[in-house]
Amino acid sequence: MNALKINTNRLLPFLNGFDNQQLAAEAEEARRKLIAGTGAGNDFLGWLDWPEKISHEIVEKITADVVRLTPKIKFFVVIGIGGSYLGARAVIEALQDSFALAGRGSCPVVIYAGHTLSEDYYADLMRLLDSTDYAVAVISKSGTTTEPAVAFRIIKAHMERKYGRKGAAERTIAITDAHRGALRQIALDEGYSMYEIPDDIGGRFSVLTPVGLLPIAMAGFDIEALLAGAREMREVCLNEADPQRNPALLYAMARQTALRKGYPVEMLVNFVPQLVYLAEWWKQLYGESEGKEHRGILPHSATFTTDLHSMGQYIQDGQRLMMETVLSVAKPKNSVAIPFDEKNLDGLNYLQGKTINEINHCAQEGTEMAHNTGGVPVLEIEVPEVSERTLGQLIYFFEFACGVSAYMNGVNPFNQPGVEAYKSNMFRLLGKPGV
Amino acid sequence: MNALKINTNRLLPFLNGFDNQQLAAEAEEARRKLIAGTGAGNDFLGWLDWPEKISHEIVEKITADVVRLTPKIKFFVVIGIGGSYLGARAVIEALQDSFALAGRGSCPVVIYAGHTLSEDYYADLMRLLDSTDYAVAVISKSGTTTEPAVAFRIIKAHMERKYGRKGAAERTIAITDAHRGALRQIALDEGYSMYEIPDDIGGRFSVLTPVGLLPIAMAGFDIEALLAGAREMREVCLNEADPQRNPALLYAMARQTALRKGYPVEMLVNFVPQLVYLAEWWKQLYGESEGKEHRGILPHSATFTTDLHSMGQYIQDGQRLMMETVLSVAKPKNSVAIPFDEKNLDGLNYLQGKTINEINHCAQEGTEMAHNTGGVPVLEIEVPEVSERTLGQLIYFFEFACGVSAYMNGVNPFNQPGVEAYKSNMFRLLGKPGV
Repeated sequence: MNALKINTNRLLPFLNGFDNQQLAAEAEEARRKLIAGTGAGNDFLGWLDWPEKISHEIVEKITADVVRLTPKIKFFVVIGIGGSYLGARAVIEALQDSFALAGRGSCPVVIYAGHTLSEDYYADLMRLLDSTDYAVAVISKSGTTTEPAVAFRIIKAHMERKYGRKGAAERTIAITDAHRGALRQIALDEGYSMYEIPDDIGGRFSVLTPVGLLPIAMAGFDIEALLAGAREMREVCLNEADPQRNPALLYAMARQTALRKGYPVEMLVNFVPQLVYLAEWWKQLYGESEGKEHRGILPHSATFTTDLHSMGQYIQDGQRLMMETVLSVAKPKNSVAIPFDEKNLDGLNYLQGKTINEINHCAQEGTEMAHNTGGVPVLEIEVPEVSERTLGQLIYFFEFACGVSAYMNGVNPFNQPGVEAYKSNMFRLLGKPGV
Repeated sequence: MNALKINTNRLLPFLNGFDNQQLAAEAEEARRKLIAGTGAGNDFLGWLDWPEKISHEIVEKITADVVRLTPKIKFFVVIGIGGSYLGARAVIEALQDSFALAGRGSCPVVIYAGHTLSEDYYADLMRLLDSTDYAVAVISKSGTTTEPAVAFRIIKAHMERKYGRKGAAERTIAITDAHRGALRQIALDEGYSMYEIPDDIGGRFSVLTPVGLLPIAMAGFDIEALLAGAREMREVCLNEADPQRNPALLYAMARQTALRKGYPVEMLVNFVPQLVYLAEWWKQLYGESEGKEHRGILPHSATFTTDLHSMGQYIQDGQRLMMETVLSVAKPKNSVAIPFDEKNLDGLNYLQGKTINEINHCAQEGTEMAHNTGGVPVLEIEVPEVSERTLGQLIYFFEFACGVSAYMNGVNPFNQPGVEAYKSNMFRLLGKPGV
């Protein structure tokens, strides 16, 4: 069963009657378009049925690669950018130890490359890899996207020096196009373990394909549960036409209403730093899907209570530009209570025996109230816990709602024409042949 | 000499004639108000002269604490939130190894607490601290701010179990009010090494006081050079009335013009992930100083090229809401060049011998051109490198420009009345005595 709840109590006073019949009809039309494949970008709808369609062989192959490599490595380098980076990182950071890089766990520590052109980052990375054992996943449809191609060329050379050509090949996994492309050719030549990126699933919708599943499994997490969560949410999204029973419809309606009522910014807020990269993934999903034709909601994010001592002042009292969407987690995995202190100089004995999470929830409730009073419409999305299953639900929920929302706003959710602009300038400046 | 340069070429077409006499007069009036101490919030202007005024004894005491603790510890836990957290983290992350947490350096690794109420974060932290040697700085004017007070109570109890009361006291540094407060009392009772937070310097302007200097020095960086950079920029800011020679005036004028011309959002963009926390520090500085009375520019940030494959589409083609400020770094610390590859399947041989940074700079130039074409005013702030000295310059530059900008917008830059709203709700919900 779907365990995700939407709370609109702190939204309704600002978006008066947003869940009316007219808007519900718009959302339902968008939902039908998505399901029937009759909208713009309909050759990129593979993600809709993927959690049902994924073959068991893929999961088994991933498991085999994890079992094969885990004893040999301390670090697993994931080379990718955008949709070949953010989804895996979002799930891994949500689930792993906050100090995973300190390397005390039994699973490989996933680190990232190909997502930046910082020379110092690569110098630091190569020094780390000099002194440790590692393997690599390189994720790119074409194999020629500049950032990951540069990273892979450097790391491939490093691996071949360190492990020999055969040893390097055994430690490299390629996730790429099924039929064509440079990376596919390299992987075939070298004999890498290979996975396909389905043709009909775009980067930002690909986290439940091998693009995300392989790194997530390598970090030690349960990809079957992740997929099961996505399937649960898929049932709801595909079958419920009533927004009160379909959180994706309600979310899409809320944000489109906010946009029309003059709130051009949506801030996705969480109260635990483990979800920072889920917000980064969300920013790509919504920013790339909706930010076109001079339209769309500008995605922003914050982590509370940290940023209540930073962006909090602006949210409370600055220009009234934003709707706030709070991603709320009911229960943490651990329990840490406030100890008693005889002297009580800090005055915290009134909290003695309370868990930190109880205090965090009072902070959250207090924040939502305060922002509401200050003129911020607040939507709450609650999950019972952060787990593979709830993350699978959240991922599918956000993807489906994104499609609905973009269709409601009259744009194609599945293209990203603006991403090419900087690239073509860059190629010209770099003197790329043929540009 | 001040090495920071402002480039307005990609701003002028959008903010036509923004550097006119009228606006320059406004900026100059704000600058004079700041220097003369005649504006709102003038009891919090201690940061203006601090880099000149800081006594050599403070730097010596910090050095002594670093020398005393470094051989004994692997981790140094900095407990603080907002201005007692972001400044130190901004400088440390800008300068340290990208994988510092993996612990291969000779200096203590700085980690953070008291900036969150995530129960899982504390569970992870306490597991880490169980198995390693550490010391702590607790940073709070009052000692009763909930987040750091909760963290310190838990960590203090842990230290006293692990090292005994005396051992714990030797490993604890308190940075707090000079005259009053709970933390001051605890520190006196226990005999901690103590530093004062000047009365006339607010949290978000405090990074060059012991609040930032102590953690930065503990991480192994040169705080004398940081202060020297700030002094260089102070000379410029205090003495130059001509915006063409005073980058802080030019920056304040540019952003106030953008705001008035209908760009309510400013995105601070960098091209190296090491500057992510400098952007977080900047968000607090500007968001808290300007976001009041339903006014001010909404701060946002992105890291490129990473986020060109995420927020890039929105910036290029979404609603025209934002001005973009690019923090540009001319040279990296390291050199990593693209190797030759015989097969050249990835097609990158045209880049062979180029450094990654050369590619990054073409990406930056290409991005600025593309965003300009798409309708985004772009301001560039360039530093020759990321070092203690240039960070000191940047910090003072941003602080001074912030004061000027807020005065130009008619608000008090030095208060933060909106931060209290969530706290008072939270205290009521927690049943705090006397609330």
